Amino acid sequence: MKTRRTALLSIVAVLASTTSTMGQSDPLPSWNDVKSKSAIIEFVERVTDDSNQDYVKPAERIATFDNDGALWSEQPFYFQLAFALDRVKAMAPQYPEWKEKQPFKAALEGDLKTVMAGGKKSLLELIAVTHAGMTTDEFEEIVTDWISTARHPKTGMLYNEMIYQPMLELLIYLRANEFKTFIVSGGGIEFMRPWTETTYGIPPEQVIGSSIKTKFEIRDGKPVIVRLPEIDFIDDNAGKPIGIHSHIGRRPIFAAGNSDGDKEMLEWTTIGRTPSLGVIVHHTDAKREWAYDHDSHIGKLDKALDAAPRQGWIVIDMKNDWKKIYPRSK
Amino acid sequence: MKTRRTALLSIVAVLASTTSTMGQSDPLPSWNDVKSKSAIIEFVERVTDDSNQDYVKPAERIATFDNDGALWSEQPFYFQLAFALDRVKAMAPQYPEWKEKQPFKAALEGDLKTVMAGGKKSLLELIAVTHAGMTTDEFEEIVTDWISTARHPKTGMLYNEMIYQPMLELLIYLRANEFKTFIVSGGGIEFMRPWTETTYGIPPEQVIGSSIKTKFEIRDGKPVIVRLPEIDFIDDNAGKPIGIHSHIGRRPIFAAGNSDGDKEMLEWTTIGRTPSLGVIVHHTDAKREWAYDHDSHIGKLDKALDAAPRQGWIVIDMKNDWKKIYPRSK
Repeated sequence: MKTRRTALLSIVAVLASTTSTMGQSDPLPSWNDVKSKSAIIEFVERVTDDSNQDYVKPAERIATFDNDGALWSEQPFYFQLAFALDRVKAMAPQYPEWKEKQPFKAALEGDLKTVMAGGKKSLLELIAVTHAGMTTDEFEEIVTDWISTARHPKTGMLYNEMIYQPMLELLIYLRANEFKTFIVSGGGIEFMRPWTETTYGIPPEQVIGSSIKTKFEIRDGKPVIVRLPEIDFIDDNAGKPIGIHSHIGRRPIFAAGNSDGDKEMLEWTTIGRTPSLGVIVHHTDAKREWAYDHDSHIGKLDKALDAAPRQGWIVIDMKNDWKKIYPRSK
Repeated sequence: MKTRRTALLSIVAVLASTTSTMGQSDPLPSWNDVKSKSAIIEFVERVTDDSNQDYVKPAERIATFDNDGALWSEQPFYFQLAFALDRVKAMAPQYPEWKEKQPFKAALEGDLKTVMAGGKKSLLELIAVTHAGMTTDEFEEIVTDWISTARHPKTGMLYNEMIYQPMLELLIYLRANEFKTFIVSGGGIEFMRPWTETTYGIPPEQVIGSSIKTKFEIRDGKPVIVRLPEIDFIDDNAGKPIGIHSHIGRRPIFAAGNSDGDKEMLEWTTIGRTPSLGVIVHHTDAKREWAYDHDSHIGKLDKALDAAPRQGWIVIDMKNDWKKIYPRSK
């Protein structure tokens, strides 16, 4: 019975998506009628038209998206760092010595400048206590609790409400055209997976990110995977094509990012590869979101922005191209 | 136009698969009517029936399969080793010194005993010259050439003709019931990906395996990923649950293997997890394939076989349970 019902639902879903892409309705309603929007639609129509020489088989329609600054906001600092600081606060009662010990003291006082001054060593110490030492199931529960309760200090929104409505529409539009959408983020793979499916419609097996080492063991007769305080893989810069190759094993034909950390992913997707499309979200909207690029400490967009015209990458001017930022924005 | 046609094809595919699972036709025709077959069918019917307490949503229907000895043969030695030896022979004219240098001398003479006597060091040297030092595109081409021309010394078949017809039917049956099928093999991930989609219907992004390190670079203006002579990850034993967690991010509900290297994958899939099914292919057919288990150097099945009754894992008796071995067998 279920098989039949699911089959029928699949048919409805396929027909619905077909109708919306074939009909007159606008697949990207939160986008102004600007060059970036028409370039994206033109690309999708071209690769899905089997009479076009640029036609691409559905199986090869791989689209990769950065997360921080490309699908959700990343200011005033990466949301995963907010998670780590919240964890330090939640765990502090069990570690009274943190009141006197850096970087925990600074983290507890919200003194990010001191945390950052400690460099990589400080960050690794924070990761070790907040992201390791538990099983993967326990970590998933911690992240799920946090994402459904913690609020952004400036907007007061849940963090996964601070996702970009125009990019959500783009994900849905690509999937309706039989693209397979992946996240390829410098953020932690296990930090994203608990909520990407409900937030973006991207299942855990299509999420690629940075990781720490893990260990399989049988504990009290039950198999567990334990998170270890050691970096395994950094999915940023040249790590992005490596992560894509390791997890997907195909080159994408579409990639979207927003910072220099996405440059190599954009290169891997587009250089010498036809058809392909690279997209950069340029944060130009100080009023509705944030405005930053060349000199930003978070989401620095410098070399990739300079390379965009030469490489034919589409630059999205957030302020002028998007009618609305977040799903709940007016 | 294409979108519409593909949508129609999808509907046809969905209806076809629905019909075959709902109708009277046997989804596993190459299986005798034995306990292993009925246990598999009973499991699939249970997890796909939404009125059953064991119902599992399609997104959670993850099935993982070992490759060597579970989907294709692995005797008299792993087919990837045959590939490596063939590569040494093909490359030998460029390396006259190999005639006097181990392990290459032994490899050229087909003297596996001497190769193996060199242990891990010898194998790594062979991997370094046969699997590294080229771009991923170049390696893909080498593997594609090999798999479409090299023949097994005993059967004379192409290596990817030595796949198990009953397991192929099982893969198709699971997918028709909205399972997502993955390969989780100790074999090289990039050695498998070029041919798993045409051979098993498993796309590259659903193949997990052992890997060597790689490096992204721009070479002559084009982005490439270069294969380095250094092991990155061994997807065997406890590596299998780790690889599954890294690539899929969900626990499977179904796993099939054939050796002790699959024990941890079977544990991760089944222990303390309901519903779930673990399956072991037991090589019992010396006449049509090979017969080996506890004492085999290749595909040793000892502890996992002993654990099977205790863990409720289904053991497939190849000789008695399967009507036919390979697709082209009589």
